[in-house]
Parts: sequence; structure tokens; C-alpha cells
Amino acid sequence: MGFTDNHDGSSVADATEGAVLARIFPRLPASDAAIVGPGDDSAVMSAPDTRYVVTTDMMVHGPDFRWAWSTPWQLGWKAAATNLSDVAAMGARPTGLVVALAVPESTPVTVLEEFSDGLREACVSLAPGCGVVGGDLSVSATFTIAITAFGDLEERQPVLRSGARPGDVVAVSGRLGMASLGLDLLFSRGVDANGVPDASRARSVGEQHPELVGAQLTPQPPIGDGPLAAVAGATAMMDISDGLALDASRMARASHVTLAFESLLLGDDVDAALRGSEDHGLLACFPAGVELPGGFERIGMVSERGTDDVTCDGDALIVKGWDPYTEWDGAAG
Amino acid sequence: MGFTDNHDGSSVADATEGAVLARIFPRLPASDAAIVGPGDDSAVMSAPDTRYVVTTDMMVHGPDFRWAWSTPWQLGWKAAATNLSDVAAMGARPTGLVVALAVPESTPVTVLEEFSDGLREACVSLAPGCGVVGGDLSVSATFTIAITAFGDLEERQPVLRSGARPGDVVAVSGRLGMASLGLDLLFSRGVDANGVPDASRARSVGEQHPELVGAQLTPQPPIGDGPLAAVAGATAMMDISDGLALDASRMARASHVTLAFESLLLGDDVDAALRGSEDHGLLACFPAGVELPGGFERIGMVSERGTDDVTCDGDALIVKGWDPYTEWDGAAG
Repeated sequence: MGFTDNHDGSSVADATEGAVLARIFPRLPASDAAIVGPGDDSAVMSAPDTRYVVTTDMMVHGPDFRWAWSTPWQLGWKAAATNLSDVAAMGARPTGLVVALAVPESTPVTVLEEFSDGLREACVSLAPGCGVVGGDLSVSATFTIAITAFGDLEERQPVLRSGARPGDVVAVSGRLGMASLGLDLLFSRGVDANGVPDASRARSVGEQHPELVGAQLTPQPPIGDGPLAAVAGATAMMDISDGLALDASRMARASHVTLAFESLLLGDDVDAALRGSEDHGLLACFPAGVELPGGFERIGMVSERGTDDVTCDGDALIVKGWDPYTEWDGAAG
Repeated sequence: MGFTDNHDGSSVADATEGAVLARIFPRLPASDAAIVGPGDDSAVMSAPDTRYVVTTDMMVHGPDFRWAWSTPWQLGWKAAATNLSDVAAMGARPTGLVVALAVPESTPVTVLEEFSDGLREACVSLAPGCGVVGGDLSVSATFTIAITAFGDLEERQPVLRSGARPGDVVAVSGRLGMASLGLDLLFSRGVDANGVPDASRARSVGEQHPELVGAQLTPQPPIGDGPLAAVAGATAMMDISDGLALDASRMARASHVTLAFESLLLGDDVDAALRGSEDHGLLACFPAGVELPGGFERIGMVSERGTDDVTCDGDALIVKGWDPYTEWDGAAG
């Protein structure tokens, strides 16, 4: 396992499931939308406009995180933040989460407590009123987190990937490329001489580059900008999780358009901005002339569909992004 | 891993995530309640009465299933059935699922196809109209399934564990104890001389005891009886997943009553009926005089809370049931 800190007291193997849950639940945030909260066979949630938004995402020890690099608190934060971002990307306000954890028997209960604290702080900070309405706790050889998140469209139409129209402005909220630069730093300098992830080196590189490593370990997706974009009339929107270029190509294909970026609008490190994964910013298109809401900034425009999905300064972008099956090296994980 | 059949063709390591999903998605059932189905950042679901029911559950290779005993098809069936049962236990009609899978890179894509087929057949058979509205696919050293299920209360109040009242009739829908007898058979006779799970022996014992082994591997929870119980005025209800005695004790504590069973009403093997886990039947209480709906049969009555949570023929039941942390022997899994 390799938990990096000393944890006093019991592991989950020493306690009943009920006893573990009794230590975790008080640390989790309540949901303002819960009619029946945790503790029964199911929760009951409120859907005032007769619809709800649903998304699910897993984080798995190895391909998705390493204990030498992430504290349990950071992991809980990131697990919540990345799911909240998929809700916001529909233009919805996040209302609730269910959290399923499968953990090795050796896992200290304090690790689950700290995970819960990080998850709570992400909800409180990024999506006030959103809380945990249910969960499941299992044993597994591999520490695994599965979160399903819910949201309220508040009478608005969902903003899909498929609505971009020629002439729209393309905009992004959130900073591009930083999370992947942070991961690069961890891979290059958060490891020992044999390339094995090392906690003290990772901590040191995190102190030297708090913005980049923080963007990787505790992303701060602009959750509130999702509903703001919907209110402002966004025609298309999505979470940028696999790199701007790849995600934009998905939007372009879904909308049957070409997204044309301008490199001068992509920051100092254009390649990182285009290729970097796990940004968890929002990519959205707005009708020309709309005042961009919240943190959105223009990066280009939508044109009639040409031969390419995405261009930068008129040149086709060869699109590449994160694919867990082809890019994870299990042996090095 | 130990996949028991020969699988031709590619593993997930050979394919991109998109290519794998393209093979799985056509096999999954659509949801009648989906406004926006799979493929965007989130799905959008209909909640006609402004509420929805939510539950989540994981199945992990080792503690929850073994490839020598379960085919991928059976696993998909069971993963759906057990989640649908938690929706029905609220008195709700299941409407949708999101399915997150984390699988080893060596997993044949055909295994995921067969898993999808079993999941689809369970939805079609047990909860027509319920379908898959989203998912996630990750790599992991441990095959892990996390399902979140949704349901519609159809204007009714949710049936909680906490509503049982003295004088109510206690009833069960679904047969008790069979799933755990099936598991006992697999542990005793579905193994080789060293106690290691063995596929051909498991198949043989399944052919000799199709009811018991089938109850374990492809449970058929009485999903339709959940809404029927709610319509009939059930005061309390829950899914029986950890054994009747343990689950009844939870209902008794939540309702501040004692549940008094009569052994003559518990079938031929009273001990299996009380202790057996994974029945996935429904335990419910009804006002005296109500005609029991669907497959519900009386097993006792609710009395004022005494010193015990649950009694059988007036004797206190010492309650014991499945706890994943204290009862799973990782070394033998």
C-alpha cells in the first residue's frame, strides 16, 4: 500500500463496517437537496424542475493516484472536484454525491477520515449545499473510489457538447495545462533514483511549485461558471479532462463544426495548454457578442466544419490525449 | 485473473477506451427516463414527481465474486439485480443505472460484452424500462464494479426502515436462505482438493442444485413487489442483503420496535432463513388486516419494543450477518 504518514489506531480489518461508517459519516457534508439522507436502502433527492443530472467517475490506485504523491485529504478533494466538474459542465448546480469505496483491509481508518475531510472541504468550497447522500464500503486489494454526482438544472436546458454553431466564440474557464505540468514534475522529480514515487521528494517539489502540483493534486474547477455559462446562453459546454485539444475535437465532432483556436490566447505554454490532461476547466461556446460570464476567456471561434476537428492559427491539430488503456504503464504504477 | 472460458480477440489493453465503449454500449439497455443519455459529461434524467431515489453498491473481485464460479454474464446480472433491489426497497420503480468498471488490462473485451449482456437481461427481466444512462471505464489490478441506481417514487411516499409500528404484520417477498446455501455449496464442492475455486466443479454443483446456486449467482429479487408494497400501505421496508435476522434487527432499531418471527413461517431450514445473506428479498411491515400484495408472505408481527430487536417464537435472536471486514478471508479469496 505505502501510506506515507504514520497512522495510529485501527485499520478497517479491525473494525466492523458499521464502526468504520460511524467514524466517517459525521465528517461528510449533508446535501441541501436530500429528502432522505444516508442510512436507508436508498436516498431520496429533490428534483424541483422534474429533472436531474447524473455523472459517475472512478479513481483507482495506480493509474489514477499514488499514495506517495497524494495525501488522503488531497485524494478526497480531487475525487469530489472532478465529479462536480462534470455536473457543472451541463450547466447544472451540483446537489449531491454517492461515494463507494473499496479499500485494502490494511487501510487505517484515519485514512478514510482524512479522505472524508478532503471530500467535504471540496464540496463546501466548490459547491456549497452539495453533500453526500449515500455510499458503500467494501474490501479490495486495490484502493478504489467510485463517485456518482447529481445536479439541478434549475429550469434551464442542459448545455450539451453538440450545440456549437459556426460564428460562436470559443472560451475556457480555468487555467490550461497546469495539472499536467504538475504531473510531469511529480514523475520527473517526485521519484527516487530508481524512478519509484517518493513521498518526501514529492512534498519538496510541491513546495517549490505549489501552483502546478496543486493543480494536479487538488484541482479547483470553476464549478460556479457552469450555471453562469448556461444563464449566459452557452451553446455547448464540456469539462476539459483529457486535454483541451482532444476534448475540443469531441465537441467539434458532436457539433459538426470546426473549433479554431488562436495560439496567442492559449497562454505562454501553448503545447501544455493543448495537450495537458486533467485541467477540469470548462470549454464552452457562446453566441458572438455575448459578454463572457465568470472566468471565461476567449480562445478562438467556431467555424463551419472543415477537414479538421480543431485548428490552431489555421493549422490542423493532431489530437492526442489521455487514454487509460494505452498510456498507463502498469509496471511503473 | 483466471477467466474460465477461452476468449478470442482483444483485451482492453489492445484497444482505446473509445473502442471498448463502442463495443459495450450497443448491448446495454436504454432508459425510458433518460432525457439525455450516455455520451455527454452527464446524463439528464426525468423525475416526474420532483424526487428521485438513489443507491450505490460495489462488487469487488475476491470478496464479492470469483471468476471460477461466476460467468461474466452472471456477474452483470447480479450487479444490476442487487442495485435494483435497493431501489425497490424504497417502494420505487427503478429507472436508470450508471455503471463504473475498473478492470485489469488483460480483461478480454468479450468479458465486458458478456457482462453487459447479463446486466441488460436483468434490467429487461426485473425492471423493464430501466436502463444504463452513463458509465466509466478504468484500469485496475482488481476487477471492480460500481453501480448507482435510480428510481421513481411515482407520487408515493418512500417506505423507510423506520416506520414499523406495533401490531403490524411482518412479511417477506422472495425465498429466504437459498443464496447462502448456494454459496455454501460452492465453497464446499465448487473447489479443488486444495480448496481453490474450480470452474468445472462449480459448474457441476450448479447443475445438481440449480435453485440454490442460481439464487447465489443470478438472484431474482422481486423488484415489482417494492412498488406494490408501497401502494398497499407498507409502513417499513428494506432489502434483505445481510441475512434476515441482521436486517430485521436494523429495521427494529430504526423503528423502535421488536420484530417477532414465527419459526413455522420461516420454511424448512429456519437457521438458513435467518442467517443466510444475499437473499435480496424484501422485508416489509404492513398494517394488520391489509391483504399482502404480490409475493409477500407473513413471517411474524411487530410488537412494542422489548429487550430484543428480533425474536423467534419468543426467544431472542442473537444476530449475526455478513460483515465484509471481519468475514472475508483475503488469503483464501
